[in-house]
Amino acid sequence: MSKKMDSWKTLSRQKIVDFGKWLTVENHTVELHDGRVIENWPWIITPDYINVLVETDEKKFLCFRQTKYAIDGTSLAPVGGYLEPGEDALTTAQRELLEETGCVAREWITLGSYIVDANRGAATGHLFLARGAHRVQERHADDLEEQELLLLSRAELQAALAAGEFKVLAWTTVVALGLMYLKD
Amino acid sequence: MSKKMDSWKTLSRQKIVDFGKWLTVENHTVELHDGRVIENWPWIITPDYINVLVETDEKKFLCFRQTKYAIDGTSLAPVGGYLEPGEDALTTAQRELLEETGCVAREWITLGSYIVDANRGAATGHLFLARGAHRVQERHADDLEEQELLLLSRAELQAALAAGEFKVLAWTTVVALGLMYLKD
Repeated sequence: MSKKMDSWKTLSRQKIVDFGKWLTVENHTVELHDGRVIENWPWIITPDYINVLVETDEKKFLCFRQTKYAIDGTSLAPVGGYLEPGEDALTTAQRELLEETGCVAREWITLGSYIVDANRGAATGHLFLARGAHRVQERHADDLEEQELLLLSRAELQAALAAGEFKVLAWTTVVALGLMYLKD
Repeated sequence: MSKKMDSWKTLSRQKIVDFGKWLTVENHTVELHDGRVIENWPWIITPDYINVLVETDEKKFLCFRQTKYAIDGTSLAPVGGYLEPGEDALTTAQRELLEETGCVAREWITLGSYIVDANRGAATGHLFLARGAHRVQERHADDLEEQELLLLSRAELQAALAAGEFKVLAWTTVVALGLMYLKD
């Protein structure tokens, strides 16, 4: 029943902004499936990242309350961070869990990888659920933001999600997918 | 128990890329909560958008199978589109539902608004669940992509979500939040 659908072709690409690892913008010329050509299609490249919903051995969820430049006020946040060059997403997730909370986890569940902008690319977000987290060392949070570590019950997490307290798209996604996984 | 957290201040901003409504990039100088100053902080502005999980009167879910420039192959997709200047998000959602599927809905549930990039901004995604959708006119899909309209049962939708068949972050988010709402 599905007909064949052809993806668009990139005819040319030119870099027009270069902030190093943080942001590259390219100008693409694109050929559509029907032969039409679109000029000046902006293409964004930002670093791929991970987010982790972390459940401890005591069945509590590790979250932060923190500021971010793009957020008004504070937001609840899961563990998260950017992939280093050459690093695979699970390794990043395990590294960030250890750095941000001092914990390791007994079980890692993949919740999928998703492109951020369907038209302009941006980044891929890799989402995980970590279970059986327990502290093995002190935290070494070196992020620029102020951060407060919280332990939420499942009911508190669910209420915070429904109230929109995770204000960033990927943060809400990882919490929703993690809670759905745990309910099944 | 929560301490006061101060947001960062924008000391200056300079536009460095202008693709009109599709993309603006600015270069910000930012002052952190502790007085440190960061130069060359890239800031992205892309258009705000809506996504809608649509349940019909027959309790089926309206989805598309389609291509997108940033996606390999095809993806399942919900109803979606960009806000026109001055348009509020619910109006956009209702307009896109009508244009893309020829339907109106009896009930609209807000699933929250989320910033796409916590550090660089990008866009705000406004997510909705529409219930009691029923066709009132023909479709007028004028998107550039090829698109096939599908009707999925709740079990099929849940399986597709778990299998990662919604390949774009906001698409997975609206489906997950919508399904969670319907289960409660």
